[in-house]
Amino acid sequence: MRPSASPEICRPVTFTTDFGYSDEYPGVCRLVIARVDPDIKVIDITHGIPPGDVRRGALALASAVRFSPPAVHLAVVDPGVGGTRRALALSCGEHHLVGPDNGLLGPAAAVLGGIEAAFDISSTPVRAGDSDTFHGRDIFSPVAAELARGAAPGELGDAVGFRELVPLELPEPVVTPQQVDAQALYLDQYGNVILNLHSEVLDGTFFTEGVAVTLETSLETIVVPLGRTFGDVEPGEPVIYTDSTGYLALAVNRGSAASRFGLGPDNELRITPVPSQ
Amino acid sequence: MRPSASPEICRPVTFTTDFGYSDEYPGVCRLVIARVDPDIKVIDITHGIPPGDVRRGALALASAVRFSPPAVHLAVVDPGVGGTRRALALSCGEHHLVGPDNGLLGPAAAVLGGIEAAFDISSTPVRAGDSDTFHGRDIFSPVAAELARGAAPGELGDAVGFRELVPLELPEPVVTPQQVDAQALYLDQYGNVILNLHSEVLDGTFFTEGVAVTLETSLETIVVPLGRTFGDVEPGEPVIYTDSTGYLALAVNRGSAASRFGLGPDNELRITPVPSQ
Amino acid sequence: MRPSASPEICRPVTFTTDFGYSDEYPGVCRLVIARVDPDIKVIDITHGIPPGDVRRGALALASAVRFSPPAVHLAVVDPGVGGTRRALALSCGEHHLVGPDNGLLGPAAAVLGGIEAAFDISSTPVRAGDSDTFHGRDIFSPVAAELARGAAPGELGDAVGFRELVPLELPEPVVTPQQVDAQALYLDQYGNVILNLHSEVLDGTFFTEGVAVTLETSLETIVVPLGRTFGDVEPGEPVIYTDSTGYLALAVNRGSAASRFGLGPDNELRITPVPSQ
Repeated sequence: MRPSASPEICRPVTFTTDFGYSDEYPGVCRLVIARVDPDIKVIDITHGIPPGDVRRGALALASAVRFSPPAVHLAVVDPGVGGTRRALALSCGEHHLVGPDNGLLGPAAAVLGGIEAAFDISSTPVRAGDSDTFHGRDIFSPVAAELARGAAPGELGDAVGFRELVPLELPEPVVTPQQVDAQALYLDQYGNVILNLHSEVLDGTFFTEGVAVTLETSLETIVVPLGRTFGDVEPGEPVIYTDSTGYLALAVNRGSAASRFGLGPDNELRITPVPSQ
Repeated sequence: MRPSASPEICRPVTFTTDFGYSDEYPGVCRLVIARVDPDIKVIDITHGIPPGDVRRGALALASAVRFSPPAVHLAVVDPGVGGTRRALALSCGEHHLVGPDNGLLGPAAAVLGGIEAAFDISSTPVRAGDSDTFHGRDIFSPVAAELARGAAPGELGDAVGFRELVPLELPEPVVTPQQVDAQALYLDQYGNVILNLHSEVLDGTFFTEGVAVTLETSLETIVVPLGRTFGDVEPGEPVIYTDSTGYLALAVNRGSAASRFGLGPDNELRITPVPSQ
Repeated sequence: MRPSASPEICRPVTFTTDFGYSDEYPGVCRLVIARVDPDIKVIDITHGIPPGDVRRGALALASAVRFSPPAVHLAVVDPGVGGTRRALALSCGEHHLVGPDNGLLGPAAAVLGGIEAAFDISSTPVRAGDSDTFHGRDIFSPVAAELARGAAPGELGDAVGFRELVPLELPEPVVTPQQVDAQALYLDQYGNVILNLHSEVLDGTFFTEGVAVTLETSLETIVVPLGRTFGDVEPGEPVIYTDSTGYLALAVNRGSAASRFGLGPDNELRITPVPSQ
């Protein structure tokens, strides 16, 4: 191995997984990184992505990298581990992304300005162990650590055309002047329901002071005001607001919109203008 | 922005929230801090405060700061985000506290010797983003980071009289020579029930070897010995002990008192002397 | 206290507990360590060990230390806190282990090459507080911090014969040429069921392409192929593979074997050859 890099050279490694918090899995990866170089700073994004939920992982990572200094972003939501899916390192300006080739890294790469180069690290020379089920430990962590201390990705894998990479499939809303068919992308821990509607796509539509929302789950139709924040409505009342990620979201002030309306990921909502009285 | 502070100057930032562990919210705040200065050390206290539970957040923070070296304490349990509540930075000796003006910071400030100066940072010049629902990311984290690297709080907000601040309302026990009416403050993860009885208030009362406890939830009355630790009673038996925070607590050795007795926050307990036989 | 050690001298402290993520307990320990020396790096393994589950804590710690650089390993799963159990610091080559004398540290010590010296730190001079229920904060954390900055364990406690230490009791499988009686050691967060069968003990047995598994819980017998990874079977199908820890495990591809088969820790599985057709 190369000599220890100086702390000034090391970039931080951000760390996003579906490993959860009950097992030692994130900790073992941190040790693999510390063994490569103890001066590498690991910044946890979350390890609470629902198991195997590549889409939620991709959106969480994309939200985070918008606010990141130059870093190596290690992300592992990897239900296909040990099979034929590629292991990847991507270069995006002053950032690197490391993870499985299943769409997880795509939205973050777009936020960072797009992929400049892609490398297949499946047979990387810096493997930390030989398991077929824990590439987070054995492939992704040591590669991320080597990149953090200044290795060139070409030393760690083989260049691949980045047009060959597996894209992330996100449900697209159907937006017409009369109605919008949207879907719940995910729930956050407050029970806010984040929708697949970026605020930009709604400029000039009927989204002004309020909308009528018909829920696929109950066929109930509710009139919901548009607000800036939760407290724009009384406690217990629903509100639609632009979330900190830029997506529209349905919340209940001091409550859980997910519980109140029985909503989960992929549930559909039909949004129409408020009927005039 | 000012040039990077030397690592010797940076104070650590402690970090307490109700953001939970499933979303990227704590991670995004860590990135905002790292972008201000990568040498700032972030020390997580907990992100598992029940959503919106200002009282539990305040008590957790106060318990933690008792053991802290000089630091900036970033705390966000903020159900009124984006509304009229102030955003605050408080100075307490060699410590700063940063968070919403809803009582969250009060008990910690008292532990640290009281508030010396208070600043309204709602319009701080160091904002990191423009959301109305995530001031943890956009206001509190960048202010905490600037304080950690040596900024004066007066550069980050406007002085306010600290007698104007919102106090935390804690339920007070009713202590008489014949009985004590207490409440459950919170449950910890072992199911220990922490009561609003600080050990100091019970000196000279009938709390000696044991007490009789009548539970509001079941009207059941149980006789519970007072002990130093869980193992002072047999496995499965209840015990009242002085918790590491200084509050009295009801536990079941190798079990959960909360489950056993159906207790939750705010449930009342009437405590009387053990009847003589 | 001694003067601050230089960052180059400080070893990292790894940190494994059953404290969970809802309370401030891990955070308070981090502050105790930072107060001893702010340059000590704390690497979290997990705080999600089930409350009081010494065996799961011991196995998680042993899995982690295999990949660790020289470090102090602080581990607290301590249902007997404040009672007669000893508090320990163990020396194993370039590593130290700190925690209660209840078997928690044993498997990790074995991975690290065995115990070279053991010290009873119950009456350590570096206590951080005087509770009887939170020795993680008051005894184990300050001792770990002093070891991390170079203290000799003999300064922090009294030597004890390491043959007196409490061993961990692990269920042993019964392996015969005709059948193997195994037990579930623990479930990971994906619902994979880790068995008390190390891959080494099965060399030369009937474990080749597949086995028949009879579940104690349902008396159901299922034929399960042996695979390298989850994707070796169709989604929803079971597979037995060698886990990244070296133990055999039962999984369901893109599902939870624990839920599917109703398995929990200690449940028994009888494994026999696949009947010929």
